[in-house]
Amino acid sequence: MINIGIIGAGRIGKVHTQSICNFVQGAKVTAIADPLMTDETAAWAGGLGIGKISKDYLDIVSDKSIDAVLICSSTDTHSQISLEAIAAGKHVFCEKPIDLDVGRINEVLQALAAPEAKRLKYTVGFNRRFDHNFSALRAAVDNGSVGKVELVKITSRDPAPPPAEYSARSGGIFLDMAIHDIDMVRFLSGEEVESVYVQPAVLVDPAIGEAGDFDSAVITLKLKSGALAVIDNSRRCAYGYDQRAEVFGSLGSAASRNDAASNVRVATDAGVLAEKPLYFFLERYMQAFATEVTAFCEAVVNDTPVAVTAEDGLKATLIAIAAKESAKTGLPVKV
Amino acid sequence: MINIGIIGAGRIGKVHTQSICNFVQGAKVTAIADPLMTDETAAWAGGLGIGKISKDYLDIVSDKSIDAVLICSSTDTHSQISLEAIAAGKHVFCEKPIDLDVGRINEVLQALAAPEAKRLKYTVGFNRRFDHNFSALRAAVDNGSVGKVELVKITSRDPAPPPAEYSARSGGIFLDMAIHDIDMVRFLSGEEVESVYVQPAVLVDPAIGEAGDFDSAVITLKLKSGALAVIDNSRRCAYGYDQRAEVFGSLGSAASRNDAASNVRVATDAGVLAEKPLYFFLERYMQAFATEVTAFCEAVVNDTPVAVTAEDGLKATLIAIAAKESAKTGLPVKV
Amino acid sequence: MINIGIIGAGRIGKVHTQSICNFVQGAKVTAIADPLMTDETAAWAGGLGIGKISKDYLDIVSDKSIDAVLICSSTDTHSQISLEAIAAGKHVFCEKPIDLDVGRINEVLQALAAPEAKRLKYTVGFNRRFDHNFSALRAAVDNGSVGKVELVKITSRDPAPPPAEYSARSGGIFLDMAIHDIDMVRFLSGEEVESVYVQPAVLVDPAIGEAGDFDSAVITLKLKSGALAVIDNSRRCAYGYDQRAEVFGSLGSAASRNDAASNVRVATDAGVLAEKPLYFFLERYMQAFATEVTAFCEAVVNDTPVAVTAEDGLKATLIAIAAKESAKTGLPVKV
Amino acid sequence: MINIGIIGAGRIGKVHTQSICNFVQGAKVTAIADPLMTDETAAWAGGLGIGKISKDYLDIVSDKSIDAVLICSSTDTHSQISLEAIAAGKHVFCEKPIDLDVGRINEVLQALAAPEAKRLKYTVGFNRRFDHNFSALRAAVDNGSVGKVELVKITSRDPAPPPAEYSARSGGIFLDMAIHDIDMVRFLSGEEVESVYVQPAVLVDPAIGEAGDFDSAVITLKLKSGALAVIDNSRRCAYGYDQRAEVFGSLGSAASRNDAASNVRVATDAGVLAEKPLYFFLERYMQAFATEVTAFCEAVVNDTPVAVTAEDGLKATLIAIAAKESAKTGLPVKV
Repeated sequence: MINIGIIGAGRIGKVHTQSICNFVQGAKVTAIADPLMTDETAAWAGGLGIGKISKDYLDIVSDKSIDAVLICSSTDTHSQISLEAIAAGKHVFCEKPIDLDVGRINEVLQALAAPEAKRLKYTVGFNRRFDHNFSALRAAVDNGSVGKVELVKITSRDPAPPPAEYSARSGGIFLDMAIHDIDMVRFLSGEEVESVYVQPAVLVDPAIGEAGDFDSAVITLKLKSGALAVIDNSRRCAYGYDQRAEVFGSLGSAASRNDAASNVRVATDAGVLAEKPLYFFLERYMQAFATEVTAFCEAVVNDTPVAVTAEDGLKATLIAIAAKESAKTGLPVKV
Repeated sequence: MINIGIIGAGRIGKVHTQSICNFVQGAKVTAIADPLMTDETAAWAGGLGIGKISKDYLDIVSDKSIDAVLICSSTDTHSQISLEAIAAGKHVFCEKPIDLDVGRINEVLQALAAPEAKRLKYTVGFNRRFDHNFSALRAAVDNGSVGKVELVKITSRDPAPPPAEYSARSGGIFLDMAIHDIDMVRFLSGEEVESVYVQPAVLVDPAIGEAGDFDSAVITLKLKSGALAVIDNSRRCAYGYDQRAEVFGSLGSAASRNDAASNVRVATDAGVLAEKPLYFFLERYMQAFATEVTAFCEAVVNDTPVAVTAEDGLKATLIAIAAKESAKTGLPVKV
Repeated sequence: MINIGIIGAGRIGKVHTQSICNFVQGAKVTAIADPLMTDETAAWAGGLGIGKISKDYLDIVSDKSIDAVLICSSTDTHSQISLEAIAAGKHVFCEKPIDLDVGRINEVLQALAAPEAKRLKYTVGFNRRFDHNFSALRAAVDNGSVGKVELVKITSRDPAPPPAEYSARSGGIFLDMAIHDIDMVRFLSGEEVESVYVQPAVLVDPAIGEAGDFDSAVITLKLKSGALAVIDNSRRCAYGYDQRAEVFGSLGSAASRNDAASNVRVATDAGVLAEKPLYFFLERYMQAFATEVTAFCEAVVNDTPVAVTAEDGLKATLIAIAAKESAKTGLPVKV
Repeated sequence: MINIGIIGAGRIGKVHTQSICNFVQGAKVTAIADPLMTDETAAWAGGLGIGKISKDYLDIVSDKSIDAVLICSSTDTHSQISLEAIAAGKHVFCEKPIDLDVGRINEVLQALAAPEAKRLKYTVGFNRRFDHNFSALRAAVDNGSVGKVELVKITSRDPAPPPAEYSARSGGIFLDMAIHDIDMVRFLSGEEVESVYVQPAVLVDPAIGEAGDFDSAVITLKLKSGALAVIDNSRRCAYGYDQRAEVFGSLGSAASRNDAASNVRVATDAGVLAEKPLYFFLERYMQAFATEVTAFCEAVVNDTPVAVTAEDGLKATLIAIAAKESAKTGLPVKV
């Protein structure tokens, strides 16, 4: 039985807490911290049997009874808390990205490379790798069904744009949103990215453009083997959260679709109407969030490798930064 | 090159004429007859290069240059013209049914059994057997994909009911409409029917009920091997012409869907909308009509067996009559 | 907060226990009883924080701290335990069927009709009503999308047959299996059944026939309004658990499909391959089991009507018994 | 009634000839020419009632009884024959491309701009615009269902690569293959292209690379309004001819799928298998070829505008040339 501390009790922190309580045998959430801890959240945590409730994450980092921490706080705190947790000998599940700054990510990697940290598990929250559809897609690639990979195509469109002021903080569309899709390209192809070209656009909200960001993009990637990948992103999608991928290879293709709340079709004089895709990322990836946290806990308990490493976090960030540069210069950029 | 005479220049007569002109190599329509031949139809026929245009079908039956006739006239004339055409040594393609009266059908079978008629091809227009979806379904049964057949399910729903007065003339829902589905059960299962039970209803148009007919039915059939079949019929279908079948067997199932004019899906806030099925039987079975006529001509030219025999016409009629009796008595009926 | 006792710690008892622990706010499982309680099960229950673990269900029925019981024991104990639990003032969630004997079901209904039982909630485990697909189908009927219901069609085929000796105990295919589909006809149509006709067969396992039962059936039902329903059942399905329904009405139809573990399609030279349906009823109805137990707990906590009543249990049983009689006599049977 | 001459009796010339004979009322093929005219082809043409059969296309161009010509000869003769036919006062249907050389295309446009040519119809064979799926997609854009267009995505993958030596003659993947998809971007978006970036690759056949061409590409296009488009091309597709498009806009998306020979699904223990897409372009676009020729004939007969103009041919060529340049330089190119 391992003890887990949750740092950050916002939306995703709560999702992970609940997943561990419901689904993870052999792990127990014993502490939760958030600088904005409300009475309501504290009561919710108490109801789940969490004994230590705090406004200071250091109460968790310094707690010797805690084996692992989940870093679910705001992005700008991820690398700092990661470093402190590693120093305190904790296993770490860190929400993506580790940092917007590559130098800071490298500091985390160096800390993990230290002899005394060798035994620690560190993973990054690329939840989509654990989605039932995307993992089935990867399995189709792994089992050879599509042959040698030639093209990975990803459609990733959010239901609604964030406030324009969010862009600056989040690192913009490439570091905040496309980074998931970039990781998916690496995950599905099993390959590294060599260069990237972006055709960006502001089509959804002019305020996003004024804030120096884009709300739409087509991202073309060249992989090490010569294979290709392409991602289309938009910050708005009228019919919900559009999350699809397709892998083409020498022997065929494998494609995943969106899921809906039901598969019912209603046929009338107006046509045949199906439900639109699940609207919200928490609905779409609910099972994936639970699976990724379970996988992390199992890696800790069994001392097995994590599925997503800190290097995976670094590489996706480097590609996202190259994409951002390509969007600005209008030229292809080597990673 | 064979010469063909068309008897009956109504809707289906014109469809077959056009199909032969467009698609059938080695056959030529040289004559067409209809008691109601209009100037317009005559001009249309002339434009297709048809030399003999008449109001009297005997002009075709007695024409020694004609090898084969297509009987596309009203149902009550089918058996009489069949007998005359057989006597005149013509190959015959007869629209279904051969007759509503079993005695009359048997007369046609007897005429075909005569030594001098042995060389003649006689086929019945069960066009659905030639549909690309239903024939693929049959192929899946034939190639063993579904194993030993256990259940055949057929959905057959017309877009709109006929006038109530049509019921009497047509023989009612079982002899006019369900007969196609009954033939499909025999075609897909490769089996004979042992007994039938009908649960009928009048749900669409009370006038149909007042005319002594039904507009809806669930027909359960027991096949010789013990396997089952079920048909659901309705004279009205708000979303078009619903024509589907599914065969379940020991190793799996094979199912066919409806076709639409395009496969485009439009996803909006309201859902994901696909086109409704093709509305009209001529659209849905356009290719099937051409294929069945081609198959008949090829059987004549190559002296090979026809795909649908007069016996097939008789058997479907016998089952439809049993269904009609079951609907009246409320009891299962042996065929 | 209500306290719940689980009677029967077999497969379904464990599923419900876990669902309450994971998903139901405001309810707590405080006791579990099973005559075959193993050390393993006791340890599992202890791990979930269940304090009272017993081999005797009377320890639960007589426990004044317990508000509600879930009867998950073998079928032949359902009515007896129901009566005792009602007498002890417990709310009851009873797995289906209440009893195979109508007289015993009526005893339960009479007990519930007593003045002192008026405040008690009693529900029957027709879990499929809570499935996301079937409830969306019902919603399409309720919101008028399909117009006036004319036909309900249900496909229900189990992945693999039970042992033949199970037939006698379970009541046979109609009382054990078809009863779920019969309830679904009532649920989707919102109507009562007037008569039933069954065309049964033994196509899967001759031993089932020798035990006096059937393994395949087509069940035709006539509803009070004159509308129709048809169910096809089989005890074996090579591609998994086939659970579909379709409702046809004056304005259109609504249909639900099977769910699979992923929606990935692999296209190769051999065709386009999708995953087969979920194989096992616990996978397919996992969410439905959680939702039905949550709904029951909410009805208890909020003192609102249950979704499935004891009368629903009685009516489905009466129809299943009529189906069994029709299968034996070969004649339609009034309910 | 208009008289038509066919120049080029290869595969596509025969397809168009047959389409006019079968489907086009008011037009008659009276002559056909091909330098390699075989006895077999001549017999086939005679069987269709074509009176003039020649090895010299000038026999058609100079024939005063001929109103319109279809240029189905080899690509390098298109512009020359176009000029001669225009000079002779013929309406022209020219297979794509008009020429690989922009100067030659402009000569054709100039010839068409001459006062004496104003009455002539000239169209280019972008057959896909007439496909039932792509035209339904365009209709969904036109009727406002998807709102303001933001992204057009096209998947276009040939079943098998051409011989490498074909590359030089055909102009390579961009002028031979992608040009259809580029036209589709203009057709579906209703917009002009501003710039293009290509990420090319040689993944299918090294000989194609050695011949200086590519066999795979991702083409990103920026449209005048700022909207985006992306095309993925491959010269090989293991599961057949992959031809799909999707248009995303402010209110939703519209997507077309591939068609197959039947819609049958076979469910077994191995999964649910559907047929792969139609393999060959003649099967996939059979109906489109007939519709485009019919549309041309109607434009001639009714003196209405053609659906695809010479300018459309020029613009697609200019974009394809820019794509070719981008593939060589690795940089985005303005059109």
